[in-house]
Amino acid sequence: MAAEQGVKLLGTSNSPYSRRVEIALNLKGVGYEFFEENLSDKSPELLEYNPVYKKIPVLVHNGKPVVESSVIIEYIDETWSSGTSILPADPLGKSNARFWAKFIDDKAMPVIRSIRRFQGEEQVKVIEEVVELLKLLESELKGKKFFGGETIGLVDITANFLALWVGVYGEIMGIQVITKEKLPVLCKWIDEYLNSSIIKKSLPSRDELYEYLDAQIKKRL
Amino acid sequence: MAAEQGVKLLGTSNSPYSRRVEIALNLKGVGYEFFEENLSDKSPELLEYNPVYKKIPVLVHNGKPVVESSVIIEYIDETWSSGTSILPADPLGKSNARFWAKFIDDKAMPVIRSIRRFQGEEQVKVIEEVVELLKLLESELKGKKFFGGETIGLVDITANFLALWVGVYGEIMGIQVITKEKLPVLCKWIDEYLNSSIIKKSLPSRDELYEYLDAQIKKRL
Repeated sequence: MAAEQGVKLLGTSNSPYSRRVEIALNLKGVGYEFFEENLSDKSPELLEYNPVYKKIPVLVHNGKPVVESSVIIEYIDETWSSGTSILPADPLGKSNARFWAKFIDDKAMPVIRSIRRFQGEEQVKVIEEVVELLKLLESELKGKKFFGGETIGLVDITANFLALWVGVYGEIMGIQVITKEKLPVLCKWIDEYLNSSIIKKSLPSRDELYEYLDAQIKKRL
Repeated sequence: MAAEQGVKLLGTSNSPYSRRVEIALNLKGVGYEFFEENLSDKSPELLEYNPVYKKIPVLVHNGKPVVESSVIIEYIDETWSSGTSILPADPLGKSNARFWAKFIDDKAMPVIRSIRRFQGEEQVKVIEEVVELLKLLESELKGKKFFGGETIGLVDITANFLALWVGVYGEIMGIQVITKEKLPVLCKWIDEYLNSSIIKKSLPSRDELYEYLDAQIKKRL
């Protein structure tokens, strides 16, 4: 896909937040130029476009920055009518999608990220807590192919971390969080999701991510 | 205003989150029934309608719940076209409003709420940090009457905590956070905001809030 004039993404290949924006752009069929940021030596553009957080991802459209992945995804959906709709058309459906996307960001991800700070029995307890949270998410998914119904929507995009990152982290650390026994509905979704053509082209490969996360974890030890 | 059939708000009078929803409904001219929740003995409706968080506010419209104040405000704006628009019509304006509303919720409010956990010099430092964050917010406000321009919008609604709660807390605790010397633009906005007729009818009175917060603080001591 040729880059639409004036659509740039400042991001990093291995960030789930940055990849959310790529999924959204690819769902809409919007071409873009990707600029890989070095987070230990941020570009002048990143600092200029996101002076408040100095963080990726930043979408730059016709020279104007849009910041925060959840905000960027809605911007993309509202700006381009091509491709599939990322949010439902009705206000109640929109609210429901926003609620679960926020649940993933504010509630589930912080607990998942905390797993590695615990050991032994304490870690088992945190994993149980994560499973309980993800069961709530499963209740939203039941009877549907994707959170968005027949097509990938806001919650599916936001859940990319659960579909790929959690599994790869788990493999490196020897911790299983999302299993068929405990979260069968979510596991089925992960299969469907990772096999969808738009997602395949919008996420890093498992090997690439493994290598990156493994190096990150070793740096920390 | 007569309650529109089927619009209920489960909330508490002294919660800034619950009051945000009242502001939004009043801006749209939507009548509603308000149900005061007792948070130490939550109603069966609250537990049924918000099983994930069991928190107020919950807007119930035609029997369907909408949860999380930021999600509810957008729902109200999308459902009723009466009154003023809470979000701008263009995607870039929308994104900008969402960014600053999120900034207040995720960045400014947690630091402000942390002030009371510190004493002496450490507290002075946290207050300085708050002032720096609020200066960023001021930069968004410069040259405008409200964050929404000539009318009250999403960011103004979300900032109700800054306009009233911070001042009353400060009075009780003997701490000044938002001062004319340090944050003149924000102070001017607070004046305009608290004197606007919709806001006046949508917030608790200063005395009522003082009494409530004072009792809360004494309980904690």
